[in-house]
Amino acid sequence: MMPKTRLEAFSDGVLAIIITIMVLELKVPHGVDFATVQPLLPVFLSYVLSFIYIGIYWSNHHHMLHTVKHVSGGVLWANLHLLFWLSLLPFVTGWMGENHFAPLPASFYGFVLMMAGIAYSILSATIIREDGPDSLLAKAIGRDIKGKLSVVFYAVAIPTAYFVNQWIAEGIYVFVALMWLVPDRRIERVITTTE
Amino acid sequence: MMPKTRLEAFSDGVLAIIITIMVLELKVPHGVDFATVQPLLPVFLSYVLSFIYIGIYWSNHHHMLHTVKHVSGGVLWANLHLLFWLSLLPFVTGWMGENHFAPLPASFYGFVLMMAGIAYSILSATIIREDGPDSLLAKAIGRDIKGKLSVVFYAVAIPTAYFVNQWIAEGIYVFVALMWLVPDRRIERVITTTE
Amino acid sequence: MMPKTRLEAFSDGVLAIIITIMVLELKVPHGVDFATVQPLLPVFLSYVLSFIYIGIYWSNHHHMLHTVKHVSGGVLWANLHLLFWLSLLPFVTGWMGENHFAPLPASFYGFVLMMAGIAYSILSATIIREDGPDSLLAKAIGRDIKGKLSVVFYAVAIPTAYFVNQWIAEGIYVFVALMWLVPDRRIERVITTTE
Amino acid sequence: MMPKTRLEAFSDGVLAIIITIMVLELKVPHGVDFATVQPLLPVFLSYVLSFIYIGIYWSNHHHMLHTVKHVSGGVLWANLHLLFWLSLLPFVTGWMGENHFAPLPASFYGFVLMMAGIAYSILSATIIREDGPDSLLAKAIGRDIKGKLSVVFYAVAIPTAYFVNQWIAEGIYVFVALMWLVPDRRIERVITTTE
Repeated sequence: MMPKTRLEAFSDGVLAIIITIMVLELKVPHGVDFATVQPLLPVFLSYVLSFIYIGIYWSNHHHMLHTVKHVSGGVLWANLHLLFWLSLLPFVTGWMGENHFAPLPASFYGFVLMMAGIAYSILSATIIREDGPDSLLAKAIGRDIKGKLSVVFYAVAIPTAYFVNQWIAEGIYVFVALMWLVPDRRIERVITTTE
Repeated sequence: MMPKTRLEAFSDGVLAIIITIMVLELKVPHGVDFATVQPLLPVFLSYVLSFIYIGIYWSNHHHMLHTVKHVSGGVLWANLHLLFWLSLLPFVTGWMGENHFAPLPASFYGFVLMMAGIAYSILSATIIREDGPDSLLAKAIGRDIKGKLSVVFYAVAIPTAYFVNQWIAEGIYVFVALMWLVPDRRIERVITTTE
Repeated sequence: MMPKTRLEAFSDGVLAIIITIMVLELKVPHGVDFATVQPLLPVFLSYVLSFIYIGIYWSNHHHMLHTVKHVSGGVLWANLHLLFWLSLLPFVTGWMGENHFAPLPASFYGFVLMMAGIAYSILSATIIREDGPDSLLAKAIGRDIKGKLSVVFYAVAIPTAYFVNQWIAEGIYVFVALMWLVPDRRIERVITTTE
Repeated sequence: MMPKTRLEAFSDGVLAIIITIMVLELKVPHGVDFATVQPLLPVFLSYVLSFIYIGIYWSNHHHMLHTVKHVSGGVLWANLHLLFWLSLLPFVTGWMGENHFAPLPASFYGFVLMMAGIAYSILSATIIREDGPDSLLAKAIGRDIKGKLSVVFYAVAIPTAYFVNQWIAEGIYVFVALMWLVPDRRIERVITTTE
């Protein structure tokens, strides 16, 4: 059992680097007119989407660890597992953006999001198992519904992007992001109502 | 409501990475004489300017959060919004420098600065709204004038760079940076006098 | 003698950057079909292996420094020496991955791992020498066996990769990683039994 | 006056990134034999030298700020000024290494080291001026001699590299690094004796 400060510091570092190196995919163009900038628009839009996703993960990670006192080896590796999938986001973001949201990259983008979502669930389950059924658990269960819903949405988006239409998949990615952006209480009320 | 330590750590990380990856636009030249280094001069100058801007933002961010005790979800996202615009600075810096301060890149550079300035105002307004009208508020109002002035200057520089002369715009960017670099008290006295 | 906080913060920063820039070797492909992604598979696999290694080093570093109170100049430089070898991991990872685990890169990969392993032993020996024969020492001796075994394994893998078969070397790298991943108590029992 | 924690965190972040992105100049080669790796040797050697220099700066920065309690705007900008020159080290390191220690890059390398040395002196002078003539001051004066000597050495090396022989300059860079690496007490005794 270790104090959580270094886990937070390391995660903050990795997330800060991920969010910042994604912008390196916005390659400096050689021309100086609007025509040169235009092809960068999809790269820019995919950057915005991924920036928001990393922001959501950072914010949720922040909240999740807030009540935790100590971290075990299990939590430490569940956290590294989450960071692993998030570290692939710059790659799929660049691939999707540079290919103007083509079906296969859009599908891979959803895959990385889904794996990160699953990794997040594993991390929160690991923390709950070790911390016991206290106040964090209660909060986490409320969040779990949103988490599970997100993974289901990604699982639907992955084949949709490749076999049906990638724009439906992109719409799903934007929708899930919005679902997390809207303050928790309202969403939780909505989810409780629709259950 | 969360402690502010991770917000500071994450922001420090992102700002440290932004300031350092900007230097990657200074591509290592293949030759070894002065003629090879000369074309890098505008890239270097735009790097210096952006380095100073990030330094100013870091320093102000540092001061702004100093009196804050806890951060809400609103502050967290207002902060991410600021980091988003600052993360685009390496891109416009490289674009402007590599094209020797051409009109369109100079205009985009001002746009990113303006959006960062607006994001900073939103962040400070969000903090003030949540912390109530205490000592921070008083300080913040004094700063707000400088902040609003900067945004106005950028808004003037953007069309000036493209339609009139990019060097006037560059002059404005340098002037605004100097306005922030000069220690606060003197500037505030000047601004109070000119009001 | 200095407090250890900055040593941890600096090491966390360097390890976080190493782990994240490794993913930059996964170059965004220009095509959008499965055939374009396929050549990236070895790069991806070598990334996974190195990610796990950095994770192991971070986790062990975390544990090792946990009981340390102050750091001397010797510890500081032994730590920088470890970070130096780990900083070469992205290079050998990319070289090995892009050349589909060719013999020479696989051999160099083992060399960097071996040097990092030796650097880690030097760091732990430096800490023990300065902290005296307390509880940390006891733990460290237990770990030392695993550490020495790892270095021996790497020393075997380096010529094996170049002169015999690189896949045997890769198998050794995976085996050593697994040896560290399996929770300590079980491994320690195994090692004690085989002694 | 602000607490120094964020100054340290930001500096640690920037130095960690500088030290790690320098390794990106070690470009992954396309071949898999020894002939392909050989041209990387000068890049590697210049990386080692710069890694040690950043290590020295980080270690000294660490010691210098250890006794400081609060930082003013002056200290903050003197620190950013130091980070600015250090941020140019990856550029001159790559340029020098890729051109096999050619005269002009070797000269520029010395220039960046000299400016960083001057910036370090300014930072330490700024801290001493604000903290008053206490214990830090005494230590700093001892260090100042080494600092001033280093700047003189760099000032000699810069024209030597370009007009005489770059290897003499490289020898000076290595010598200055060793001068800082050798534990303080011995060096201070040596310097006191030679005064």
